[in-house]
Amino acid sequence: MEMREEVAVIASATSRFTKKEPSILELSCQPALKIFRETNIDRTEVDSVIVSTCSMLQYTSSIVCEMLGIRPNKSCRLDNLCNSGSIAIASACSEIAAGFSDCALVIGAEIISNSSAKKLEWDLTRGQFNHPVHWASLFARSHMRKFGTTEEQMALVAVKNRKNSSKNPLALFRNKITLEEVINSKKISDPIKLLDSSYVCSGSSAVILASKEKAKKLTDNPVWIKGIGQKTTCASLSQLLSKHDVGFTTTQEAARQAYKMSQKRPEDIDVAELHDAFTITEIMAYEDLFLTKKGEGGKFVTQEQLSINPRGGLLGCGHPIGCTGVAQVAEIAAQLAGRAGQTQVKGCKTGLVHNMAAAGTSSSVLVLGQ
Amino acid sequence: MEMREEVAVIASATSRFTKKEPSILELSCQPALKIFRETNIDRTEVDSVIVSTCSMLQYTSSIVCEMLGIRPNKSCRLDNLCNSGSIAIASACSEIAAGFSDCALVIGAEIISNSSAKKLEWDLTRGQFNHPVHWASLFARSHMRKFGTTEEQMALVAVKNRKNSSKNPLALFRNKITLEEVINSKKISDPIKLLDSSYVCSGSSAVILASKEKAKKLTDNPVWIKGIGQKTTCASLSQLLSKHDVGFTTTQEAARQAYKMSQKRPEDIDVAELHDAFTITEIMAYEDLFLTKKGEGGKFVTQEQLSINPRGGLLGCGHPIGCTGVAQVAEIAAQLAGRAGQTQVKGCKTGLVHNMAAAGTSSSVLVLGQ
Repeated sequence: MEMREEVAVIASATSRFTKKEPSILELSCQPALKIFRETNIDRTEVDSVIVSTCSMLQYTSSIVCEMLGIRPNKSCRLDNLCNSGSIAIASACSEIAAGFSDCALVIGAEIISNSSAKKLEWDLTRGQFNHPVHWASLFARSHMRKFGTTEEQMALVAVKNRKNSSKNPLALFRNKITLEEVINSKKISDPIKLLDSSYVCSGSSAVILASKEKAKKLTDNPVWIKGIGQKTTCASLSQLLSKHDVGFTTTQEAARQAYKMSQKRPEDIDVAELHDAFTITEIMAYEDLFLTKKGEGGKFVTQEQLSINPRGGLLGCGHPIGCTGVAQVAEIAAQLAGRAGQTQVKGCKTGLVHNMAAAGTSSSVLVLGQ
Repeated sequence: MEMREEVAVIASATSRFTKKEPSILELSCQPALKIFRETNIDRTEVDSVIVSTCSMLQYTSSIVCEMLGIRPNKSCRLDNLCNSGSIAIASACSEIAAGFSDCALVIGAEIISNSSAKKLEWDLTRGQFNHPVHWASLFARSHMRKFGTTEEQMALVAVKNRKNSSKNPLALFRNKITLEEVINSKKISDPIKLLDSSYVCSGSSAVILASKEKAKKLTDNPVWIKGIGQKTTCASLSQLLSKHDVGFTTTQEAARQAYKMSQKRPEDIDVAELHDAFTITEIMAYEDLFLTKKGEGGKFVTQEQLSINPRGGLLGCGHPIGCTGVAQVAEIAAQLAGRAGQTQVKGCKTGLVHNMAAAGTSSSVLVLGQ
């Protein structure tokens, strides 16, 4: 796989993440309106719109286009559970790299009441254990058994990400928490506790992507999508468990693709957004993205050499399903462009986004650079 | 807009269209399984899967991948009401033209019970007139008033398409109908009668697209996607009506793009699939695709120089919403490859697919060639 043309992120914005239940349409429009208000990008520039959401309204994307006053060529809604947003970004990149589009608006949005996206009802192999916390506990227990990972190491992920989100005015959770608070929080499915878990909430994010030529016209501060990796192996946990070595094989494969396409190595990454739906998934992501060796993710939390989840991740910001992948790209693009505000990581030049869905049965990895 | 690489259709298959209510997942798999059974294409070749459906199951595409035994890079569901299938095909083409994918499987599927896709509930400007038959009657009455189009001319579209579908073993309606039967059928919303209207039903279709190199390896009979045009202007009828001249402006714009990209002219088209959700929409499509002059669509039915809707169109085959655009491309690809069976049009070399959604607020046009 190659990318025939590098694609630029020329703008991004994210809404406040909340427990409120706004209209999915108004929520979808919010961050795009902020971009049109605060940048020189005119809505007539946009010729492709993709809305990433697991919410069920028909014709969502065309309705959002009308509400935003955009008359694009392509317009559609796209979903793939938690992995929706990153796939939408990758799809928009392919439109541009193919020469079909010069400027694409990707919107991710979800409302808290869309409970159908929280469980994979189809996967009957899980029996009554169809909530994500159950696979998280399986992974956590296996990782502890095989590698000696501790509940304290997992808790440190939550402490770190909540410390980060305390500086992020858009985050759902603005208060820091202590190691003791995580360890003593309510057990949901042993060893996963309440504060090991992200909170599915309402939120939206928008990213505008452009071809080289269009980016030159519209911004003097582009960030480039240098590599994209995607992999799907299955949908059900039973299929997954037979293959894995306490790791997300889809993440490993997507990471290999993204590093290769971008000609970057794990040690080049300065800042990363990892899919911390649970503390254990961030620890496993360290390993499966090759930031550390398999089995050493637990230790990596304290040794961390690069800045991971500076906005607070899913644990700190909340996890609006179809929005998350877009918000992650919005954050890394803002970091690399030096416009991340209070959560800015100094001097970062290369960033990574990792997203996945349904127990890691599908994953996306993007490498971005200046 | 350009297309950096031509993309080949290397296989296609369509299910029987029915009034039954099969599982959306089993229905989605059917035509793809037929392709894997009847061609030399192995499922390991597929590295991109898009499922087009307005049905609401979460993670549909990844589940379908697991059921089919495919482990692609990209996998997602995509929708945009009646226009979903063609957008899915265009998206897959962009993946390939961008260099992200060498072989993409696009599946369109819908079940009859998915009633949420039949009306655009959001469009409150329509008041109680939110069923598609109401906008069809508005267009029909305006076209009659302005251009002298007659109910008989509209009825002839139904007679033609039902004659075609009588030869198509997959069609929902296998019996021919007469002009009198159409004219005397139940009035739904004057002047639209029951037999002027397509029937929303269950059905699925699959198309496999490939890069030049991969097509060379997998088939000796490729058909090429030579041009793609897409346009969205709005979502609500009130916005549309203020702009139109008894025509689908989105179709006109999409057609201009597709002719330009393919370097083909309307007179080059030998065979076409047009969106005949109602008889009037086929008549208007003749005009808006520039196959005849504006206002002369009514006469064109009897003068027809090229073969339009040879499989029977939506009027004869039925209209499974998210499947339709894929089934249209499957049919034109089969026609140009000379594998259309009993509905084969002799000697056709260039074909066109026209699809649209929600009163023509968005349209897609594809030009295919040998």
